[in-house]
Amino acid sequence: MRGPLAIIAGAGDFPPRLAELAAASGRPVFIAALDGAADPSAFGQADLCSYRLGQLGRLLEELRRREIADLVLIGSLPRPSFAGLRPEASTLKYLPHFARAFRGGDDHLLRGVVAFFEGQGFTVHGPADIGPEMTAPPGPLGRKSASPSQRELMTRGFELLAALSPFDVGQAAIIADHRVVAIEAAEGTDAMIRRVGDMIASGRLKIAKGDGVLVKAPKDGQDLRVDMPAIGPQTLRHVAAAGLSGIGLRAGRVLVGDAVEIARLADKAGLFIEGVAMAGDKA
Amino acid sequence: MRGPLAIIAGAGDFPPRLAELAAASGRPVFIAALDGAADPSAFGQADLCSYRLGQLGRLLEELRRREIADLVLIGSLPRPSFAGLRPEASTLKYLPHFARAFRGGDDHLLRGVVAFFEGQGFTVHGPADIGPEMTAPPGPLGRKSASPSQRELMTRGFELLAALSPFDVGQAAIIADHRVVAIEAAEGTDAMIRRVGDMIASGRLKIAKGDGVLVKAPKDGQDLRVDMPAIGPQTLRHVAAAGLSGIGLRAGRVLVGDAVEIARLADKAGLFIEGVAMAGDKA
Repeated sequence: MRGPLAIIAGAGDFPPRLAELAAASGRPVFIAALDGAADPSAFGQADLCSYRLGQLGRLLEELRRREIADLVLIGSLPRPSFAGLRPEASTLKYLPHFARAFRGGDDHLLRGVVAFFEGQGFTVHGPADIGPEMTAPPGPLGRKSASPSQRELMTRGFELLAALSPFDVGQAAIIADHRVVAIEAAEGTDAMIRRVGDMIASGRLKIAKGDGVLVKAPKDGQDLRVDMPAIGPQTLRHVAAAGLSGIGLRAGRVLVGDAVEIARLADKAGLFIEGVAMAGDKA
Repeated sequence: MRGPLAIIAGAGDFPPRLAELAAASGRPVFIAALDGAADPSAFGQADLCSYRLGQLGRLLEELRRREIADLVLIGSLPRPSFAGLRPEASTLKYLPHFARAFRGGDDHLLRGVVAFFEGQGFTVHGPADIGPEMTAPPGPLGRKSASPSQRELMTRGFELLAALSPFDVGQAAIIADHRVVAIEAAEGTDAMIRRVGDMIASGRLKIAKGDGVLVKAPKDGQDLRVDMPAIGPQTLRHVAAAGLSGIGLRAGRVLVGDAVEIARLADKAGLFIEGVAMAGDKA
């Protein structure tokens, strides 16, 4: 995997960070910035073109012209409306594929996107393959380490998430007050953290010093190439505001973006963040 | 079990309903109404005394004087503060038992209460033993039945709750949009339903007609004598307001209070409510 790499970039800090890491490895990088999501100015002097989703045909032509075989999709994208695609002529022939993919949930759509690019002869890599530095490393990220009792809470949390995996739910949970106090489903991690913060603030939930741990992990079978769980500065802010003591992440399987910056923010907020390797993890 | 029965009554409609059912069976019933929780006027002409928690010794003396061996605890009770008990002299000797029970979570406290009464020679019955009419019967409660696809959602929900049981969490969940959209932990059932309603109202969650089912069940090993899951009119209101289509309850294992009234409210709101018997349920 040493040819040129295309980064199909959505919103957020992760795409520019990945572009930086890929370029630092000496590899030619082409950024396909998705219109309305990626901010082209965040990529500095990188080789970049912007595309609307309806310009997929044009993007494929450009990738082929550049003899790019490897690509990675990263960054968030508001779920597109099929009606708002405004496809160009060169994109029309691909629509039936996406029309099918659109009919399921988000997972289904993401799998459809990967299958599409693979069907077109590209290899889709995960962000962790290209920039493993962007994932949680094993062990503490900042100065604080989890205590043995906090490690127990994390282990219990990861076991809970694993038990939920067959039901295709449960990327995150919060353990506090000797029990599971919140489990994430459709509301998302930040809303779940806020809920626990509200319960603590109202006195409905009592937590002692050092209590309260957020755990986050991918579901079994989740496609880590296009759907990797992630935390960012706002996750730390919410965790600190809620009054929790730290965060446990499955090592190598959750994106943190800029680990140095996340460690700095954790130190500042007095939180621990630890990557936890579990039995059965691939190296 | 034909001697007199004591009903130790907390707040809500369930205690008067149980008192009515027990009295209708011809059995002498004594109501010990917990001060600040039970409303004595809701019990009509029943034989009733009110007690503060700090008057436990006085209550025990009264039960013995009446030669009552059987009791049932029902109704909600705000978690008492140990400091606010203001125990009478006759209660002081029981305090060490409760001081220990207070140190754990709610489950621990409830187990401590049951163990206390059993240690004093009483038999603690569950509301379902005394008034099985108060639990969800198998099958539809009102006019509406769940469709085969709604039954599938319920089965998936009950399997999810069973998978959560070893973690001592998960009395309720909501399945919609082909997936698990909410799992109850410390926030309680009503808050979980409201969360899903908010996601639907904001367009974050799309549900089709007939979609969206609340499931509720006890955890494995939950002591159904003092900690039975329950729904009431407000649950139905929240489910209807959220835009869900119905409720699945483990038959015989979830309190509904007045089944006729609940069926009437379900019909009025256009909801189905079904009791579901699962393999392995005791008759």
